[in-house]
Amino acid sequence: MTDKKTMIVFSGDLDKVMASFIIANGAAAMGNEVTMFFTFWGLNALRKAKKVKVKKDFMEKMFGWMMPRGAEKLGLSKMNFGGIGAKMMKDIMKKKNVNSLPELIEMAQMMGVKIVACTMSMDVMGIKEEELIDGVEFAGVATYLGEADEANVNLFI
Amino acid sequence: MTDKKTMIVFSGDLDKVMASFIIANGAAAMGNEVTMFFTFWGLNALRKAKKVKVKKDFMEKMFGWMMPRGAEKLGLSKMNFGGIGAKMMKDIMKKKNVNSLPELIEMAQMMGVKIVACTMSMDVMGIKEEELIDGVEFAGVATYLGEADEANVNLFI
Amino acid sequence: MTDKKTMIVFSGDLDKVMASFIIANGAAAMGNEVTMFFTFWGLNALRKAKKVKVKKDFMEKMFGWMMPRGAEKLGLSKMNFGGIGAKMMKDIMKKKNVNSLPELIEMAQMMGVKIVACTMSMDVMGIKEEELIDGVEFAGVATYLGEADEANVNLFI
Repeated sequence: MTDKKTMIVFSGDLDKVMASFIIANGAAAMGNEVTMFFTFWGLNALRKAKKVKVKKDFMEKMFGWMMPRGAEKLGLSKMNFGGIGAKMMKDIMKKKNVNSLPELIEMAQMMGVKIVACTMSMDVMGIKEEELIDGVEFAGVATYLGEADEANVNLFI
Repeated sequence: MTDKKTMIVFSGDLDKVMASFIIANGAAAMGNEVTMFFTFWGLNALRKAKKVKVKKDFMEKMFGWMMPRGAEKLGLSKMNFGGIGAKMMKDIMKKKNVNSLPELIEMAQMMGVKIVACTMSMDVMGIKEEELIDGVEFAGVATYLGEADEANVNLFI
Repeated sequence: MTDKKTMIVFSGDLDKVMASFIIANGAAAMGNEVTMFFTFWGLNALRKAKKVKVKKDFMEKMFGWMMPRGAEKLGLSKMNFGGIGAKMMKDIMKKKNVNSLPELIEMAQMMGVKIVACTMSMDVMGIKEEELIDGVEFAGVATYLGEADEANVNLFI
């Protein structure tokens, strides 16, 4: 029996990404090794807030422009209303002293949670390594499966 | 090897919440210990159908008013069409002798499935203990992680 | 410790179904036994592209007509824009030499991934055995739970 946890973060919705970090940070605080594997829409949570100059083809540029640039820009999975819902949710959380998503990510990194970006999804969505926040690792599905084999809790979010 | 199962029910969609109870009740019927941890939108499935008088601030009232009040009011994750889809789905299920969500919840409670509401989400969404159905327990992420560590199947729904 | 993996594929979104097959095929390639349990919207991924003549009542016909008929017709979970998003995603994936969903399904079957359709969902949605692609098995929640008990990674997608 190991004390390892893995999560695939497929969703790029603010509420789901926050849930994944709350679980990850809780597990890390309890002494568990945690690996979060970001794939597809989930990659948006790891984008740097500032535009990074990289070479992209037309489709990659369009994707990059249409998708939310980083943790501050994610919307809710329900009742987002063009961002108003996400804004309200963030205001409420601040008032209730719940950590914001950027804070949760920083805490995760400080506690040693391994944050991995799926290279295949990055290729498909035209996201380059320089565009993601510092400290992110890069790997594919085989790495995920190897880690999941060693873990006792594996979630798909 | 234990015979315990846990589920995080993050979704408040009728179809997904039903799936979670069908799995939970199946596992309970096979003699498994089951804990369902309701968080975020999933909490709506546990709300009492009738309005309960509690003190709420403006934002909490607004949330309470916008979100579905209980298992009877949930919508489908797809093809809901303002509730018509959910109504149709419920009619079909009745005709096919599939238990309704309120029935599934009652069965789960009778079989000893542990239904836990996430206190942090309750705080954020302004949901009070009295507003949730009887028999629900209250706990945070550490409790979830403790239970998940003992289980051999852990799902995020 | 076993080397078995199970997935419940509840979603019928192109991106999520592709993710499930990429994980399944990766695990199978590493020598794991893999069972995918398709339920609810996920069943649409297993429908034959051609209409199959079967007896259906009015509601079943309507459902069959409204839901996507097979892996080629699925939409994206986000930014689908009435199918334009899915079309763009498929074009990009082709250009990047990522296998299409029909190819991923064929590979899964060749590698011995067990593809199971949930009979209870089929009944509710009025989907008949003949309407699903060849090689699919049919079972209920008890079978899923039995398989999940033997697996070391269980995901809900």
